Amino acid sequence: MKKIVIIGGGAAGPKTAAKAKRMNPENTVELYTDENLISYSACGLPYFIEGTVKNINQLIIRTPEDFEKQGINVFLEHKVEKIIPEKKCIIVNNKEISYDELVICTGAELIKPNIKNIDIDGVYYLKKIQDGIKIKEAIQEAKKVIIIGGGYIGIELIEAFVENGISVTLVENSDRMMKIFDSEFSDMIKNHILERDRQWVDMHFNQEVEEFFADERGKFIKLKTKSGLELEADFCVIAVGVRPNVALAKDAGIKIGITGGIETDSSMRTNIENIWAAGDCTEEHCLITKRPVYVALGTIANKEGRVAAINVTNCPKVCERFDGILGSAITKYFNYTIALTGMNAQTAAKIAQKHDLQPISATVVKKDKAGYMPDSENITIKLVADKKTGKLLGAQGVGTGDVNKRINTVTSALQSGLTVEEFLHLDLPYAPPYSSTIDILLTAAYRLDAQIKGKE
Amino acid sequence: MKKIVIIGGGAAGPKTAAKAKRMNPENTVELYTDENLISYSACGLPYFIEGTVKNINQLIIRTPEDFEKQGINVFLEHKVEKIIPEKKCIIVNNKEISYDELVICTGAELIKPNIKNIDIDGVYYLKKIQDGIKIKEAIQEAKKVIIIGGGYIGIELIEAFVENGISVTLVENSDRMMKIFDSEFSDMIKNHILERDRQWVDMHFNQEVEEFFADERGKFIKLKTKSGLELEADFCVIAVGVRPNVALAKDAGIKIGITGGIETDSSMRTNIENIWAAGDCTEEHCLITKRPVYVALGTIANKEGRVAAINVTNCPKVCERFDGILGSAITKYFNYTIALTGMNAQTAAKIAQKHDLQPISATVVKKDKAGYMPDSENITIKLVADKKTGKLLGAQGVGTGDVNKRINTVTSALQSGLTVEEFLHLDLPYAPPYSSTIDILLTAAYRLDAQIKGKE
Repeated sequence: MKKIVIIGGGAAGPKTAAKAKRMNPENTVELYTDENLISYSACGLPYFIEGTVKNINQLIIRTPEDFEKQGINVFLEHKVEKIIPEKKCIIVNNKEISYDELVICTGAELIKPNIKNIDIDGVYYLKKIQDGIKIKEAIQEAKKVIIIGGGYIGIELIEAFVENGISVTLVENSDRMMKIFDSEFSDMIKNHILERDRQWVDMHFNQEVEEFFADERGKFIKLKTKSGLELEADFCVIAVGVRPNVALAKDAGIKIGITGGIETDSSMRTNIENIWAAGDCTEEHCLITKRPVYVALGTIANKEGRVAAINVTNCPKVCERFDGILGSAITKYFNYTIALTGMNAQTAAKIAQKHDLQPISATVVKKDKAGYMPDSENITIKLVADKKTGKLLGAQGVGTGDVNKRINTVTSALQSGLTVEEFLHLDLPYAPPYSSTIDILLTAAYRLDAQIKGKE
Repeated sequence: MKKIVIIGGGAAGPKTAAKAKRMNPENTVELYTDENLISYSACGLPYFIEGTVKNINQLIIRTPEDFEKQGINVFLEHKVEKIIPEKKCIIVNNKEISYDELVICTGAELIKPNIKNIDIDGVYYLKKIQDGIKIKEAIQEAKKVIIIGGGYIGIELIEAFVENGISVTLVENSDRMMKIFDSEFSDMIKNHILERDRQWVDMHFNQEVEEFFADERGKFIKLKTKSGLELEADFCVIAVGVRPNVALAKDAGIKIGITGGIETDSSMRTNIENIWAAGDCTEEHCLITKRPVYVALGTIANKEGRVAAINVTNCPKVCERFDGILGSAITKYFNYTIALTGMNAQTAAKIAQKHDLQPISATVVKKDKAGYMPDSENITIKLVADKKTGKLLGAQGVGTGDVNKRINTVTSALQSGLTVEEFLHLDLPYAPPYSSTIDILLTAAYRLDAQIKGKE
């Protein structure tokens, strides 16, 4: 019998708690969070704002009561103030709570850019359930919104606002949106959004916001950028990303990695005995670049929580390892899918010398189904590979057709280190409503193969 | 400079011709076929009959003129009568045509069951363009149709007929449909079709058709089965499969494999020098069962044609190999997808002893997207693995949601021999409109993992 204490109620914390309790119901499992609910799908918030998800409660996966019923003690609105490793305890409300194993799942925190008057009313973020509710309320009266940040949340919010008849202005401080893609994909995404919804959507790049302005009641009315651009709107959403929330861990002497996330080994153990970490507060290992990387995603949090739970239960025996991630991600703008996995060509070029890579790529535009099927749609897929080893390094895709399937298919290939030569013979299931006879993935692989064999 | 002669105009023949000519335009490439067109998508015929594909010409991928323009000599309606390997020639219209390299792409031929009066009017097959045109004409006047055979074509034709307001009776001689799936999947498929369209569709299993009956004009009016069942209809389609068309090859002393297809090595070379084979006339190697298998599919024909073209061009140097297939396949009944790859559990059980396998499986029913997305649908996925090695062996899936993506994702995993332990950490791209946080594939993998580690 041991006492497992978990800090954090996002994705990794509840997963760790539930799995650990299931593995050994004899163990005491306690979960502390400063929020008033746990285990919800933050990724669903844009669809709640849009109106696709009708009721905010649908986003709550399991209630605290569900956890209590399972025998897990959930402490809502209990802020953990300190971790004292040498005493194997945490401090909550000035009280010492002891642990045998501690799992830190403190998640991510919002990045707040350096903008004057950032804390006025009418400036929102999108991270917690309450944020979603606030924005949903705000759009009832709004005609025009500004979004700062052209990443996933930015795109999903443009959709949500346009769907509700609200004009959107996107302000991005770099020269393009969706920067985890190669730049021509950023352009395709931008062009698609503007072509579909030019009357609703306006975009400004290379614009760093300097100052917000409020009306006499203290509510946002406009912003000004460093280059002097002034933009008015009913409210503003800041979506410039998150960073690992590691203050508590750092303070306890837990090692922080170069990405800013808590460093763990593949068992999710930190550098301090009996202290583990999982989810958005940790740094990941990228299987493709072989480098540390920070990715805040519910899927990864779940996987890490599962591994942490197995290992804290069996500790000191390590029974499960999480070797790393591919950096897969997907989103959509209405019916236009935007997805990638592994390395893009620009990253590959950047690290080529250091990693002894010779990156090559092939981009194919092709129908997602047999061309004669009336609902077939053009999609664009780019595969990246290493000419030296022949190994696939990554895939990017966009389009109104089935991009999703293609990127998912490449994940397995990356996970196992398939070469282009192996991949191009892949026996993909074929029927006219699902694919062309030679699938776009294989066409791209043939082109890479020709480059590898020096025929192109 | 060499002369490459190809026999057959289905999928493999035109692919071989086009690729070979592209690789070395100096070579003479001749293609002989007894049909009056080449390079068409037979898989699209059910959708032409249904009306989804409006014009039969859409199914013609490249016309003979396209090939001629590329410098390939296409001989339509030229039946090859004999291959004389010792003289390196073929006989067409009693004339000797010499070759340096010969590629046999004679495709598949229909299996005609042993039914009395099988050759009367109103009995159709579905293999060639003309077959599709004939059935399309026949349905204009028809109210009731019988389909013999509950495989892919059978299901696709049920959809085509139901969509056109025609009642369908399916007659199958075994106890279930879609026998390449495990039997519970056959049941799910049958139940789905009947639940959706009970007023249109009727099914009879374990019924062997004995005799057809014609009216006074010689046209089909009814059939009788061995057990005495009599069924009437306006016409009947026989769809009990195909077998490799190997008469010409056999006659020339070319080795036929145990599946009845032409045996080739991985370079697509037959046992006779300078004679190669590709497409539906050949036998394949299954990468999972490690056994010879016969699969007649356009995708495989294309891959084999490509490899044959590369190798005949470079011969005697072998530059490309086709190692084998996974046995992937997919079809649909309206919005219900039916797909598989690799080995099913029943096959695995059958060959377990001989192949030293310890097959396990896990079936999961789960939403294809985040459960709170209003268009999320339940799908059923079954993964099969070997407990001894931990390796994945196959996947089957059905449902109105995105089954297609999941089966495609497993193909890469099978191709590379991923173990369950490796697969369950797969970094699949996640967003609520595309997947649940823990994808159904990973849930199934977790269950397999628990069995492998003896926890279930």
